[in-house]
Amino acid sequence: MSTSRLEAFSDGVLAIIITVMVLELNVPEGDRFSDLWDDTRFGLLTYVLSFVYIGIYWNNHHHMFQICDRIDGGSVLWANLHLLFWLSLYPFTTAWLDESKVALTPTVVYGMNLMAAGTAYYVLQRRMMRMPITGQRLRDVVGSDFKGKASPFIYLLGILLAFVQPWLGLIPYVAVALMWLVPDRRVERYLASHQELAD
Amino acid sequence: MSTSRLEAFSDGVLAIIITVMVLELNVPEGDRFSDLWDDTRFGLLTYVLSFVYIGIYWNNHHHMFQICDRIDGGSVLWANLHLLFWLSLYPFTTAWLDESKVALTPTVVYGMNLMAAGTAYYVLQRRMMRMPITGQRLRDVVGSDFKGKASPFIYLLGILLAFVQPWLGLIPYVAVALMWLVPDRRVERYLASHQELAD
Amino acid sequence: MSTSRLEAFSDGVLAIIITVMVLELNVPEGDRFSDLWDDTRFGLLTYVLSFVYIGIYWNNHHHMFQICDRIDGGSVLWANLHLLFWLSLYPFTTAWLDESKVALTPTVVYGMNLMAAGTAYYVLQRRMMRMPITGQRLRDVVGSDFKGKASPFIYLLGILLAFVQPWLGLIPYVAVALMWLVPDRRVERYLASHQELAD
Amino acid sequence: MSTSRLEAFSDGVLAIIITVMVLELNVPEGDRFSDLWDDTRFGLLTYVLSFVYIGIYWNNHHHMFQICDRIDGGSVLWANLHLLFWLSLYPFTTAWLDESKVALTPTVVYGMNLMAAGTAYYVLQRRMMRMPITGQRLRDVVGSDFKGKASPFIYLLGILLAFVQPWLGLIPYVAVALMWLVPDRRVERYLASHQELAD
Repeated sequence: MSTSRLEAFSDGVLAIIITVMVLELNVPEGDRFSDLWDDTRFGLLTYVLSFVYIGIYWNNHHHMFQICDRIDGGSVLWANLHLLFWLSLYPFTTAWLDESKVALTPTVVYGMNLMAAGTAYYVLQRRMMRMPITGQRLRDVVGSDFKGKASPFIYLLGILLAFVQPWLGLIPYVAVALMWLVPDRRVERYLASHQELAD
Repeated sequence: MSTSRLEAFSDGVLAIIITVMVLELNVPEGDRFSDLWDDTRFGLLTYVLSFVYIGIYWNNHHHMFQICDRIDGGSVLWANLHLLFWLSLYPFTTAWLDESKVALTPTVVYGMNLMAAGTAYYVLQRRMMRMPITGQRLRDVVGSDFKGKASPFIYLLGILLAFVQPWLGLIPYVAVALMWLVPDRRVERYLASHQELAD
Repeated sequence: MSTSRLEAFSDGVLAIIITVMVLELNVPEGDRFSDLWDDTRFGLLTYVLSFVYIGIYWNNHHHMFQICDRIDGGSVLWANLHLLFWLSLYPFTTAWLDESKVALTPTVVYGMNLMAAGTAYYVLQRRMMRMPITGQRLRDVVGSDFKGKASPFIYLLGILLAFVQPWLGLIPYVAVALMWLVPDRRVERYLASHQELAD
Repeated sequence: MSTSRLEAFSDGVLAIIITVMVLELNVPEGDRFSDLWDDTRFGLLTYVLSFVYIGIYWNNHHHMFQICDRIDGGSVLWANLHLLFWLSLYPFTTAWLDESKVALTPTVVYGMNLMAAGTAYYVLQRRMMRMPITGQRLRDVVGSDFKGKASPFIYLLGILLAFVQPWLGLIPYVAVALMWLVPDRRVERYLASHQELAD
């Protein structure tokens, strides 16, 4: 089964998630800069964070399916939908984090949402590694997957820090995003040495 | 006529339906866990149910068009739009079910929406079975279509049970979703034995 | 220039327009059938009408670009965006029509929106008829374009009837939709006799 | 790495941005023409302006990737996401501009949003010019890029004029849009003389 429709559907869902979060930004009631600062400061910050996260997932998803020429059925489709489910909750948990002005429970819930999406991505990747040809390629590319394995622990650190002071919890969440933003050339290097996949 | 644009349009509509339902989730007014429980408990449960239903339709739609290489015109396009119409009402009936905290009429209306979408899918499938080559393949794959024929009766059971106690009606609705979630390997087996279709 | 990205973008916009209209449906405040009837009767009726209109445009757009293998630049892109602009106002004019419970001005404005979209489609079609190869094909297929030419007059009739009684204006609007729903086999017949285009 | 998925994702985001802005249009409370004028006059004007801007970006993006056959990795993906980030704020800044009825700060913030998106496009273009084959083609097509270089200065003029009188600031914003609307045949001419790229 070719992967093109799975990719198109995932692109659609991710594109909508990223854009729908803007609808959750409250337009300031007044028309001065202080109104923007008061009403939308937290909204813009959390929007940037969630935008970057969705961007990272889109990038990694794109790379993973780039080296996958074929999928073998339902369980990959559902592992993918499972990932999209947790990502689709980002607009909701982001809006709560924003409207509560970074209170304790919303910060914890946001971190749990990040962790659930990370786990779902890991499950999808494991599932794809079990496939005959794609699996070997993926294992070559992902290697020890240090980032994938470290992320849940850093999210957990954020959740724990939130109990000290809610906004402290955001620091590990931002750190994970930055860690993934650092370019990872493995897939590109792999594609460069396997020209037939790049077409 | 190739099916690629029909698939792309359907993917777009399904991707938006799935994401738009998140916009109907009410962000809790307070910032404690009890607020999340009070304000969003029903919202999250109904969201999961509708998400799974849309996922099932996307999966089945994807499989059906995988074995269909060509469509012969307007009536398939309209049978498909008819299906998308009923699916596009899910965010509305889900939101009513959620905001009424699973009251009688919204539970019945939700079940009727599920039933209408199921019927529309059945009609689309019948319409595609009438096509020369695709039709034969589809009949081979779908076989007796036990699930397709049983679903409306289970939905009806849910609607009737709702009159006893509204939340009882949700049990058959969940049961239908679980029945379809159980992997159905017929299309994949068919594709495995007809390699030329898998490309 | 190939048409695939223009089609993908148009599909995206049309898919979103059709789904976004559901967000404008007001979830009833109460949980009885009479609440659904009171609060959403007009909303559901106008939603069906606008859904059918967007479906018709998608169908016709799909057919028109099916016989067009290449576009020659900016003015087709802008003629297409012009059409999408008027269609993108449907959720807005539909919501006003619905919330006013079919009052005079919203009925007139809705009719003017329908007319503007019809005109934009006509302009796009004329623009594409000026292209070397596609143009000849389109002229063969569209022929005298009776429906295209009659539609604005029927919309105008609707606008005038609205001044007698607002809901009377809806009759011609519904009539135009029905006229276009009647299957039109010209493109399919053309494709059947020009097999090389159907791939 | 092929560009098709990057284009599909960008198309999705742009299609949603364009449509989501309609959701920010307030449906008039009354049902007379004066209500439409009072409640939605600014909303419609700013909607048209932002719609045209998104249309221009889609057009230019489409043209740029038309002559690009391959991208070499992460930094193009992120430069593209950076552009989409600023464009995704259009619905928010447009809604504030509209609801404030063109007050000073929202006009300035809107102009800064336009400027940030223009800069992000410039950065993406520069990044793509550094690639081996595509880069040379892009430099041939873009040439001195007068429009790209002049735009930020005209936006700046708009921001400064807004301090004199807010609505005066809109004149340069409209002027930039008109400047880009004037058809620019360079890419098409380039494609016409490089037939192999047009397929």
